[in-house]
Amino acid sequence: MGRTPSNHYHHGDLRRALLQSAEHLLESEGLDKVSLRAIARIAGVSHAAPYHHFDDVDDLLASVATSGFSRLRHAMSNKAEAVEGPPLTRLQEAGIAYIRFAAENPEVYRLMFSSRLRASENHPELAKAAGEAYATLGALLGRSSPNASAAFGAAQAAWSTVHGLAMLIIDSRLDIDRNDAEAVERAAREVTNVLGRGLRDLVSGA
Amino acid sequence: MGRTPSNHYHHGDLRRALLQSAEHLLESEGLDKVSLRAIARIAGVSHAAPYHHFDDVDDLLASVATSGFSRLRHAMSNKAEAVEGPPLTRLQEAGIAYIRFAAENPEVYRLMFSSRLRASENHPELAKAAGEAYATLGALLGRSSPNASAAFGAAQAAWSTVHGLAMLIIDSRLDIDRNDAEAVERAAREVTNVLGRGLRDLVSGA
Repeated sequence: MGRTPSNHYHHGDLRRALLQSAEHLLESEGLDKVSLRAIARIAGVSHAAPYHHFDDVDDLLASVATSGFSRLRHAMSNKAEAVEGPPLTRLQEAGIAYIRFAAENPEVYRLMFSSRLRASENHPELAKAAGEAYATLGALLGRSSPNASAAFGAAQAAWSTVHGLAMLIIDSRLDIDRNDAEAVERAAREVTNVLGRGLRDLVSGA
Repeated sequence: MGRTPSNHYHHGDLRRALLQSAEHLLESEGLDKVSLRAIARIAGVSHAAPYHHFDDVDDLLASVATSGFSRLRHAMSNKAEAVEGPPLTRLQEAGIAYIRFAAENPEVYRLMFSSRLRASENHPELAKAAGEAYATLGALLGRSSPNASAAFGAAQAAWSTVHGLAMLIIDSRLDIDRNDAEAVERAAREVTNVLGRGLRDLVSGA
């Protein structure tokens, strides 16, 4: 126990521990309470330790948001691959997984869309992860829509719908408790039903 | 000019001037920069003057948000009433007006949905204005949907879609400049086209 706290971790493990502590702090206390100092305390390392991996708190938060987009993408594609059926059925399952991710990780989700992190300018890896998540949604809409404009409109409609419902749920704007998984799933299914009907003519093989 | 600055205004005019100054400051500098002191300076009144009308800055911001919901509601119903056509055509025009309002007033729109103002607990007039805006969208969906659950799903889908696109535009998540009115209108029309097709079977008289 005479070691300095940051020696508890191997290099990669420290980074992971800091990210986990940041996410824990974010979800339990909110973005305003997140500082490198508080994160170091939760991870049980010295105040200086986070600087081995991150320039400042926004650099660390960008990594939390990047990891969030990556997990969101995997949640969507895992669900889409697990179901049999036409493209729109798979899109619906991916959309429900998207909304569930936001309901389960509200502060991470909010951070992912926060204007605080100017992704493309300062955090290229965050911009890349966000782009990949968006592309996953686009790929589920099929590659052979009647024309590029229709495909673009379809992707925007799909993203708008799931993002809108996700935000309304986590901002408590609907009479839905975000911790009630069944209520979230029911609302997500109803709203993506409408989306699916709307996209029927736009998505080939639907 | 020997008068104290707040004497420049009649009672109701001071309140209006403070709200206008707050909105100006909000849109030009962002929520973080809004304080009663800064608002008083812009309105050209004493530091004490705002307290004649508002308990604190959140009380004033709640009034800005309340006025925002009221203007949003009028923007939607004016548009819906100005067009001829079936309910879904009127809903689409209202939805486009909704998205345009957000693009033109991004910080006010963000404030309206901010968790900072816990509407129902501390600001009942804000909760009322928000409820009325939501009801306007619901009324455009027609009063005679096949059943209550379908009507509820339709309203949630409509609100999710317009809120989602509005947020994606004002958070610069799409390749759309929020100040480019034509680009905003085009995206809003495409996305509400998808919504309208999705709602066709749910809305009576569509």
